[in-house]
Amino acid sequence: MAIITLTTDFGTGSAYVAAVKGVILSINPEAAVVDISHKIPPHDIRRAAMLLDDASGCYPPDTIHLAVVDPGVGSERNIVYARIGGQQYVAPDNGLLSRLAERIPPSKIIRLSEPEYWRHPVSATFQGRDIMAPVAARLSLGLNPDLLGQPLGQLHALDWPRVSSAPARIDGIVIDIDAFGNLITNIEAESFAGRPTDRRVCIVCNIYEMWGIYRTYSDQPSGSLIALIDSSGRLEVALVGGNAARRLGIELGTPVTLAWE
Amino acid sequence: MAIITLTTDFGTGSAYVAAVKGVILSINPEAAVVDISHKIPPHDIRRAAMLLDDASGCYPPDTIHLAVVDPGVGSERNIVYARIGGQQYVAPDNGLLSRLAERIPPSKIIRLSEPEYWRHPVSATFQGRDIMAPVAARLSLGLNPDLLGQPLGQLHALDWPRVSSAPARIDGIVIDIDAFGNLITNIEAESFAGRPTDRRVCIVCNIYEMWGIYRTYSDQPSGSLIALIDSSGRLEVALVGGNAARRLGIELGTPVTLAWE
Amino acid sequence: MAIITLTTDFGTGSAYVAAVKGVILSINPEAAVVDISHKIPPHDIRRAAMLLDDASGCYPPDTIHLAVVDPGVGSERNIVYARIGGQQYVAPDNGLLSRLAERIPPSKIIRLSEPEYWRHPVSATFQGRDIMAPVAARLSLGLNPDLLGQPLGQLHALDWPRVSSAPARIDGIVIDIDAFGNLITNIEAESFAGRPTDRRVCIVCNIYEMWGIYRTYSDQPSGSLIALIDSSGRLEVALVGGNAARRLGIELGTPVTLAWE
Repeated sequence: MAIITLTTDFGTGSAYVAAVKGVILSINPEAAVVDISHKIPPHDIRRAAMLLDDASGCYPPDTIHLAVVDPGVGSERNIVYARIGGQQYVAPDNGLLSRLAERIPPSKIIRLSEPEYWRHPVSATFQGRDIMAPVAARLSLGLNPDLLGQPLGQLHALDWPRVSSAPARIDGIVIDIDAFGNLITNIEAESFAGRPTDRRVCIVCNIYEMWGIYRTYSDQPSGSLIALIDSSGRLEVALVGGNAARRLGIELGTPVTLAWE
Repeated sequence: MAIITLTTDFGTGSAYVAAVKGVILSINPEAAVVDISHKIPPHDIRRAAMLLDDASGCYPPDTIHLAVVDPGVGSERNIVYARIGGQQYVAPDNGLLSRLAERIPPSKIIRLSEPEYWRHPVSATFQGRDIMAPVAARLSLGLNPDLLGQPLGQLHALDWPRVSSAPARIDGIVIDIDAFGNLITNIEAESFAGRPTDRRVCIVCNIYEMWGIYRTYSDQPSGSLIALIDSSGRLEVALVGGNAARRLGIELGTPVTLAWE
Repeated sequence: MAIITLTTDFGTGSAYVAAVKGVILSINPEAAVVDISHKIPPHDIRRAAMLLDDASGCYPPDTIHLAVVDPGVGSERNIVYARIGGQQYVAPDNGLLSRLAERIPPSKIIRLSEPEYWRHPVSATFQGRDIMAPVAARLSLGLNPDLLGQPLGQLHALDWPRVSSAPARIDGIVIDIDAFGNLITNIEAESFAGRPTDRRVCIVCNIYEMWGIYRTYSDQPSGSLIALIDSSGRLEVALVGGNAARRLGIELGTPVTLAWE
């Protein structure tokens, strides 16, 4: 059974998600449509790009990921098909796939230009329903992506915050906050492989200092602020048994520093 | 594979949606159960009626749409099966299907009265689980809807706000606000077909004036308040790159006027 | 088609739910993955335990219910497979299954200890993805649960609030509030079977008094505060046409008393 995942900023209170699902199922009633998230903050391309990067790799090979966060809908921005790391993506080319593509070079990029695979008339404000959904559904039926349009050399890139690294110091920022209020940083555990992670490393987040990197939340008593490595291999700051973001008033973009004595 | 969609005001934090899905899958484990929305505001029949009208037409023919927004649950109101525009609906007859039925006359309406197709005992407060879900599941297995009860002549109608139209003027209201804060009106583009849509038309929403109807959001710079035609063919007012509803304090029911010089 | 339900406190804005679904579908692409709820308040084991108890019994026999509300992730708490009332559960053994197990003794409990059925490397902070999801997926393919580890004698129990009963009086509390603001109590209708439910019984909730237990909401005019029996057989207090919790400022844990003259 072909799997099509959906990642949008549509929310679930309106008809938009329902329409996209209906269009897919009208073309391929056997498709398994899986919600990744419809709660991307409106127009937040970066948040959706991170979520796709974190989640899509867990899916079976050839899964079709339809992602619609599209502030430029109807404008000259391209809509693309991309094959990245054995998965397939259909999305506006506005940076949504840039975080994935930075890690794994796409093996194919096609600009969608063949209207015969679309739904007509094509709305200027809802191309997720009229272009992307029908294309995803037809791909799930085995359509050759080369027929969708012309190859593109590369995807639109976004400037992602870099980690700066010095001999005894790594500087990053909070790039995500989850439903538990855990603070996810852009500092990969790989970047400090081999350096001590016990109490010889000091982690500074905003005005708070922690020593040592723990394995899991319950390694410290409730109420402790701790650093650990999250399930995607990044440094995370968490309040055991509580919501670190809310309790400490930490926001996205807050600097986080690792420093060794 | 038979498709059953769900539209409710249950929210997703409680057991209600899960129970409805479980009852359906217990009767037809092969049914594809698709969430349309569970975030209809509690008891907001009109919102659900609009959403069904916007979304259900995108589904494959014969899809079964189960809609439960049911403030009169357990009372004398009917529960109905209706066939409208090639789609099938199971819902309380309280106006939920009235917007669909106003556009497309139902080809069949049956009042559900045969308890043999229900789940027993039937709760007086959750007939979505005990009457509507089992009926939808049995329909998905091929049950003849005529067996469900007696034919009804018409569905319960609601008074929908009308657009008033004068030679140089059309008056409507905001009937929906989406997750982006876009203001959807009840003014259909068809109602002013042939009249100018360039800067000779003035759109007034609350205290705000706009000239001309644009094609898509990105036709004007960020921060502009613009009028355009939405993906369902209605006049929409949007703030480019922002949330019109929140920024302008616009609420449902706000008058919107189109005036030609 | 094998059904796997998901009940978590992950929210739907992050990659966690999507990753769990992806891992399941990578092992069994034919599994029907059904969302029960991802809106359990963070770490609220009791709320999830009640929801599982209310909802899972509606599912077909042998359905696999994957429940991840896991504040002790990575610690010494067990992860278990349990067979209860003809349904299958995979969950941390922290009380999540205790409400089910109190009503129906589990016919099998296995502590998950065989890493060959897991996803590797196993994260210390996301065992829902790395241990529970792959085990659920393999069970859906027919894996014998006895292979997952060693039998356990009993599940971790939680202290659930008891109803106290006197000849002319029953005392309970509000244990749940639904999306409509209805107040669900822990007083089972069975506990006062045979006693009068007309105006000879007085229901006291916080400072409010009601007389008689009604059949459904519409039995009284809009604005009335009424007691009735909910769709799971428990005493419920509701405001007809309104939100009782919000209007009366009632919270979880509020005492509710039934008293007969």
